[in-house]
Amino acid sequence: MRPGPRNLITDVPGLRVGHATDEAAGTGVTTILTDSAWVGAVDVRGGGPGVRETDTLAPENLVPGVHAVVLSGGSVFGLAAADGVVARLSVRGVGLKLAPEGKALPIVPSAILFDLAGEGDKDWGEMPPYRALGLASVDAAEEDFALGSVGAGRGARAGQVKGGIGSVSLDLGEGLMVGALAAVNPVGSVFMPDGKTFWAWPFEIDGEYGGAAPDGIPLAHDPMPAEGRLTRPRAGTNTTLVVVATNAALDKGEAKRVAMMAQDGIARAVRPAHTPFDGDIVFAIAGDAVALPADAGRQREILRIGSAAADCVARAIARGVFHAR
Amino acid sequence: MRPGPRNLITDVPGLRVGHATDEAAGTGVTTILTDSAWVGAVDVRGGGPGVRETDTLAPENLVPGVHAVVLSGGSVFGLAAADGVVARLSVRGVGLKLAPEGKALPIVPSAILFDLAGEGDKDWGEMPPYRALGLASVDAAEEDFALGSVGAGRGARAGQVKGGIGSVSLDLGEGLMVGALAAVNPVGSVFMPDGKTFWAWPFEIDGEYGGAAPDGIPLAHDPMPAEGRLTRPRAGTNTTLVVVATNAALDKGEAKRVAMMAQDGIARAVRPAHTPFDGDIVFAIAGDAVALPADAGRQREILRIGSAAADCVARAIARGVFHAR
Repeated sequence: MRPGPRNLITDVPGLRVGHATDEAAGTGVTTILTDSAWVGAVDVRGGGPGVRETDTLAPENLVPGVHAVVLSGGSVFGLAAADGVVARLSVRGVGLKLAPEGKALPIVPSAILFDLAGEGDKDWGEMPPYRALGLASVDAAEEDFALGSVGAGRGARAGQVKGGIGSVSLDLGEGLMVGALAAVNPVGSVFMPDGKTFWAWPFEIDGEYGGAAPDGIPLAHDPMPAEGRLTRPRAGTNTTLVVVATNAALDKGEAKRVAMMAQDGIARAVRPAHTPFDGDIVFAIAGDAVALPADAGRQREILRIGSAAADCVARAIARGVFHAR
Repeated sequence: MRPGPRNLITDVPGLRVGHATDEAAGTGVTTILTDSAWVGAVDVRGGGPGVRETDTLAPENLVPGVHAVVLSGGSVFGLAAADGVVARLSVRGVGLKLAPEGKALPIVPSAILFDLAGEGDKDWGEMPPYRALGLASVDAAEEDFALGSVGAGRGARAGQVKGGIGSVSLDLGEGLMVGALAAVNPVGSVFMPDGKTFWAWPFEIDGEYGGAAPDGIPLAHDPMPAEGRLTRPRAGTNTTLVVVATNAALDKGEAKRVAMMAQDGIARAVRPAHTPFDGDIVFAIAGDAVALPADAGRQREILRIGSAAADCVARAIARGVFHAR
């Protein structure tokens, strides 16, 4: 079982990722673009989420697919990033068309993380930078992209250490690919009680986050991380934002199940997770390149994709911290 | 950080647990009795749940508390176990009273697991044993109770090995206690890829499930457990059923958050978890012995209780398998 050639979410064909980073403000935006309307789902499990267009994704609702997913710093101000993405995609003709000559209506779900307490000049008055960062993130979108302290991960913190953007993939064979991208900003710790071994160590492939081997690891009896590694338990200040992707042709309910299973990757890479202070949102998007069987084997394939997604999320989280500077 | 004196969910004062086991049929019922109407919540995350009285627990709904939680084998037939518990508690005067002379109406949420494919005579025609087992489980309720292949865990399987009932507690100090009880029957494996090290090893206290030390553990790259450890991916045949309890005075929404965080214990102890084939239900119940602060520190206490609950769930799952025969 191997990653794809890039070991990035863009190993799922049809995806591009663009970062836009405001170094002066210490914040940014990360946008995942799909090459058509992909099936989308979301699973919100944190106690302090900040989102837009998530109800749009409910299986019982109308809209068939998404054209991009936007992750942003900036807390509530970052919700404007999707405005920029919507505007730029629309003028390029990307989006739903309700009439042949009508405007293209891009469906762009989005989630934000809190990075306002970090370094950088946030004195933007009534002109936060996020709409412009959203516009720029579309132009920046490529199959290759940076990890660590860029885009939505620019100002992220993971417990007491720098957080950032992480991404990985897993090739399930026969053309089936799963990938994840995480903006890592949780209240919990990504490290075991020794302060250096990633919780996600059992899932690492080829030293992708430094080769974390278990060697005399202290046991984790205290549910609160020791020595103040739990630093900022304030409402709305933390979250892990995740996008998982596959080229399997899932329906909306199946994509939701994959998003739900992918939350387990947060549970395995961050402790504690899903707290009242986190957002902890997983989007799942699915292209339609690989058809799944229609018979009883179908749900087993959903299980396999969901389990791979959970592993990819755990790896992406550790990798995001590993690459943060 | 230590368990309570019994290292069982009944270290939370006010709880008793009763098993009723039908050895001939290879199934059973486990009932958790509260000493008054405890606040209750539920979080359903598996793809194949079987429950009753769960919508009753929604924060927006009327009923203020629960008098028992029933876990049962028997799949859909096991939902009758709560009938027996309701009947016996009511004649003893336990339950809501809508009028002074009215019948007591016990609120008894319940969840079932599938054990019908296991050993034992299930040829019960129109008279499944679960109502009678429910009645008996009330009489059997004590603060001390058995672990392993008893009650709702009698016919449980955890991947390729015997599942069972596990329970632990954690003393958070200053009178605050958290405990968990799990009926362990997941499709996923509780063991790492070496087939012997519990996923939950980092959380073990005092060798409570055999002293699982990490020593040359193979890394877990394949999201599907190797060598057929994933044996029964059929709809409705697997689940981990969990009750977590605390004596902290939570409201319904807070109990729900604790149930949500406690699901992470399943994620850390079972891989894969929350699959289309699992039920994966966590009930959280809360007495009112320990008041939490009303100020900003309150949510931090919720975080601590939720994180402890997640750890207790991981430990209870491993312990249930360890004690199964």
